[in-house]
Amino acid sequence: MEALLNELGRTLQDEIPLTRAIGISPAWEDEGLELWAPLAPNVNHKDTAFAGSLASMATLAGWSFLWLLLRQEGLVGKIVIQDCSVRYLRPVTREIRARCAAPDPSALQSFLATFRKRGRARIELRAEIREGDQLAVELVGRYVAHQA
Amino acid sequence: MEALLNELGRTLQDEIPLTRAIGISPAWEDEGLELWAPLAPNVNHKDTAFAGSLASMATLAGWSFLWLLLRQEGLVGKIVIQDCSVRYLRPVTREIRARCAAPDPSALQSFLATFRKRGRARIELRAEIREGDQLAVELVGRYVAHQA
Repeated sequence: MEALLNELGRTLQDEIPLTRAIGISPAWEDEGLELWAPLAPNVNHKDTAFAGSLASMATLAGWSFLWLLLRQEGLVGKIVIQDCSVRYLRPVTREIRARCAAPDPSALQSFLATFRKRGRARIELRAEIREGDQLAVELVGRYVAHQA
Repeated sequence: MEALLNELGRTLQDEIPLTRAIGISPAWEDEGLELWAPLAPNVNHKDTAFAGSLASMATLAGWSFLWLLLRQEGLVGKIVIQDCSVRYLRPVTREIRARCAAPDPSALQSFLATFRKRGRARIELRAEIREGDQLAVELVGRYVAHQA
């Protein structure tokens, strides 16, 4: 997993340069992938985390979840987000930790089966940013993976 | 308007440092406020604009619209986004231009009247990013302004 996380970190940094400005690092926490960033480069006019940084990190948490899934399954694909809704429930006042919830196993199997069959598949993912044990940001997004 | 746009540009740069990494500049185009950024710092793994940059710019287009409105009305308030939905309809392959559509005049009057009366008001805004004459990204967001 360590090697895959390092590769994910390099992929984000090399292919999406804004992730360097945000300061994103992937980590494996509580049996799941987490994206981490410090608050300082992401503050807003209220000295809490900027909504754009939070949306970026939640979007990338879902993207990274699928990136890791495809790699683990030995599949190659490009991933894009199609649409999403974001709720900003509380300000984020410390480091930012974004995490994609594991989707329902049947949704995951259906996504993988469709991707293998058609070279293209769609899935809805939910990413969260928590502050302590409180939900601060929730993103629900539809992602599409397609063979490059 | 020139002085207000310069002040808005400085406010974004000073208070939300990520806007410097994105490369955002405000401009007045076709009788409306537009936020502009070059593609280079905002590319993704497909060499089009990163969804997080697009969401950030569309979010800030609405934020900046309200910032300008409050200033023009002689009001002082802090603005935050509460929730939004974003549709990524087409890739953005050139410079990014985000623009907030002028809301319905009655919604605007109601927002201002409530803000003056209660020191707090909410409004739904729609921001768009176009590529040429095609809609590429649409954000519909609820913003809250409150007296500082």
